[in-house]
Formats: sequence, C-alpha cells, structure tokens
Amino acid sequence: MSEIAKQAVVLVSGGLDSATTLAIARRAGFACHALSFDYGQRHRFELEAARAVSAALGAVDHRVVTLDLTAAGGFGHSALTDRIDVPKAGPGAGIPVTYVPARNTIFLSIALGYAEVVGAFDIFIGVNAVDYSGYPDCRPAFIAAFERLANLATAAAVEDKGRFTIHAPLIDLTKGQIIRTGLSLGVDYSLTHSCYDPSADGASCGQCDSCRLRRAGFEQAGVRDPVRYR
Amino acid sequence: MSEIAKQAVVLVSGGLDSATTLAIARRAGFACHALSFDYGQRHRFELEAARAVSAALGAVDHRVVTLDLTAAGGFGHSALTDRIDVPKAGPGAGIPVTYVPARNTIFLSIALGYAEVVGAFDIFIGVNAVDYSGYPDCRPAFIAAFERLANLATAAAVEDKGRFTIHAPLIDLTKGQIIRTGLSLGVDYSLTHSCYDPSADGASCGQCDSCRLRRAGFEQAGVRDPVRYR
Repeated sequence: MSEIAKQAVVLVSGGLDSATTLAIARRAGFACHALSFDYGQRHRFELEAARAVSAALGAVDHRVVTLDLTAAGGFGHSALTDRIDVPKAGPGAGIPVTYVPARNTIFLSIALGYAEVVGAFDIFIGVNAVDYSGYPDCRPAFIAAFERLANLATAAAVEDKGRFTIHAPLIDLTKGQIIRTGLSLGVDYSLTHSCYDPSADGASCGQCDSCRLRRAGFEQAGVRDPVRYR
Repeated sequence: MSEIAKQAVVLVSGGLDSATTLAIARRAGFACHALSFDYGQRHRFELEAARAVSAALGAVDHRVVTLDLTAAGGFGHSALTDRIDVPKAGPGAGIPVTYVPARNTIFLSIALGYAEVVGAFDIFIGVNAVDYSGYPDCRPAFIAAFERLANLATAAAVEDKGRFTIHAPLIDLTKGQIIRTGLSLGVDYSLTHSCYDPSADGASCGQCDSCRLRRAGFEQAGVRDPVRYR
C-alpha cells in the first residue's frame, strides 16, 4: 500500500457503542489510536473490554490515561464512581445519578491533546442521542461546540495544518441500528461490556440503565446478546 | 454577613497573571476555589507559589490535580515538560516550543467539572492576549468558544440552574497594567513565580520568554520586581 492512512484518535470505553465507533473508523480507513480512561469507575471490566475490543478491531495502539480527579471533587458524586446505588428501576425523567460532571468535555480535551501529538485531525466518540441516558454531553450541539473549540484551541489548527473533525457516527442511531451496523462490520459484541454494576466475575446485572438499553437494542436488532447476565 | 458569597473556581498557576486574576475574583466578592495542576512541568516552584498565593489572597481552598498524560503522549513534546532547552533568545515568530497541546482546554474542562461539584458558575483564568507567548488557547475567541461549550456540556446548565461564565479579566491588559492592577488589590508579587527554567534554589533565569515578559511588565509598571534573579 503506497497511501499513508490518516490518523484518528478513538475514545474506546469497552462498551458496545464505542466498539461500533472504532469499527466505523477502521472501515473509513483510519489508523486508529484507541484511548480509554481509568477514572475510578466502578465498572472496571470496561477497561479490559476496551483493550480486547481495540486489539480485535485492529487499532494501531490502545492507551489508558489514569485520571484521578479526587482533588477536584472526584468527578462529583456519581453512581459510576461513588458508593451510591446504581438505579435499577429503569430510566426516569431528567439527568440520572450516573451523570459524571463534564466527563465527555474532559475526555475530548485530552483526546484533542493526544491528537495533536500523533498528528491526527479526526477524533471519534461513540455518543448517542437516541437510546441514551439523558446526559447533556451526548447531544449534537455539544459535539458541534467542541469541534468549534478544537479548531480555536490548538497550534495545529491555528497554523493551518488541518481542521479538526469530531466524529460522532452513532449520534442519530437507535441502539438496534448501532448493533446491526457493528455486526455488518464484524464487531464481536461478546468482547464488549456495558453494565454499570457487574458482579465480581464480570456478569452483567441486566437491570441498570446501561444493561436495559443494551438488551432492548439486541431485541430491536433481532439478535442474541452474547454477554453473560447473572 | 447575611449574604452568601457566590462560588468561583480560579485556575492558579503560581505566576503573576493568575495571582492577579485571583485578586480580581476576590475583590468581585467571590468565594474562590483555587485549582492548580501538576502535569510534570519542569518549573515546579510554580505549585509552591500557587499554594502561597492562594493562601495570601484568601481563597476558600487550594487543590492540586495531578495529571499524568504520559499514556496519551505526555502533553506532547514541550520545553515545559521535556528535556528540550527552554529558549532564551527572546520571543520569535509563531507558536513557541513551550506550547503544550490543548493545555488550557484540558485545564478548563477539569475546572468545569469541579465547578459543577462545588456549585460554581464562574470560572476565572488568567490568560492574556497582549504580552503573551503566542499560544492559541489564550485568545478571546478560544475563551468565548469554551464558555459556549460549558453551557451545553453540563447538567447544571441544561437544568437551567445557572449560566457558566468564563472570566478572563486580563485578556486585554498589558503586563504593566496587570501588575498595576494587582498592586492596587494588594497582591504580593514576591510570592509568585514565572520562570520556565529556575535554578535548584528557585532563582529565576531572567532570560526565558516568561521572565522577559515579567521583567518588561515591571518596567512598564515602573515598580521593582521582588523575585530573585540569578
């Protein structure tokens, strides 16, 4: 191959959305630098899943940034990082207790710095505004505002070496559509992990918002969910 | 006092700009949560200075977030974090080697998460677009874009609890004006630290861009710089 692949940074959490996003970026021909965060999330099986997914989908590399924000309020009080019970009654109205303050803003900012370092102008994030939990930083207006910021914030953009694009290819898809897309691109969803409250052996609870959205998605897609539920 | 002070998060580096910014925020009546970052900068005297400045100016507290981005390219190759020589020949054209990829974006993002946690809607940053080193993330357009992002990114903004304001009160001031402002607000500049390349005992080099800007500023202001030069 004489053509040099364009570089991209892809945020990979280990969940099914980011796995599908990585597959889309790979299909589009990008050399993908997978980036995950260890921010004290309770569901650390995610990071193992992120590694497995990145390897299986042919990422150039996979990096994990440890983000200890204890000094700055520890990402606030979220059921994903604290000893607050993860809700199991299904999605309610408003923003849920699993919301982590400014999380996607922080993740995208670090991805932006990493992109400058590896010479990438494309950043992929698997946010979704349809079957999602109501987080403000998953909406199209947020992604557009971050893209605008990226093109003002960086030496690469200012020196006119290129223009940053924040890709959110799942943003308008239903969970069922995401799963069908991923299957068509060869994603092995048995490697992914979605549960906010897994048991010690990694089995999913089946009851948290994330499990509920995942199960409904597989039902919509008409295929069996390969992960193990307890 | 019957009135409850409004909370603010203030980015405090230990340099003279952020010390002046903290004094301005205090004068405006804010209860100030000072926030610093340990990102492996070579000039670690900054963090000691940040602590001293925060205490002297009556911040509510001072937190230091350790940010190890080694896994994501370690903030790139910058003379502030790597073993690249800090330039001493005076400001040149373009963006200097002391540029750190996406630094202010990352710092403001974490400040935004912290602001949500402490219930602040005001974030202060001491960037300056006049006597500065040519960093893209010190310009008014960058600050405006981040403020817009903040009001899309957060539960606090979406739930209409308030509107985030990013204050950059120094952005249009010369270094001499900044120093005169600070002196009128009682800032003790002997506590601040500006040098990119201090000697082991903390003495400033007097030759790096940051020292040059500082010295020129004290000359403009017509007052003696209280820091020690080697």
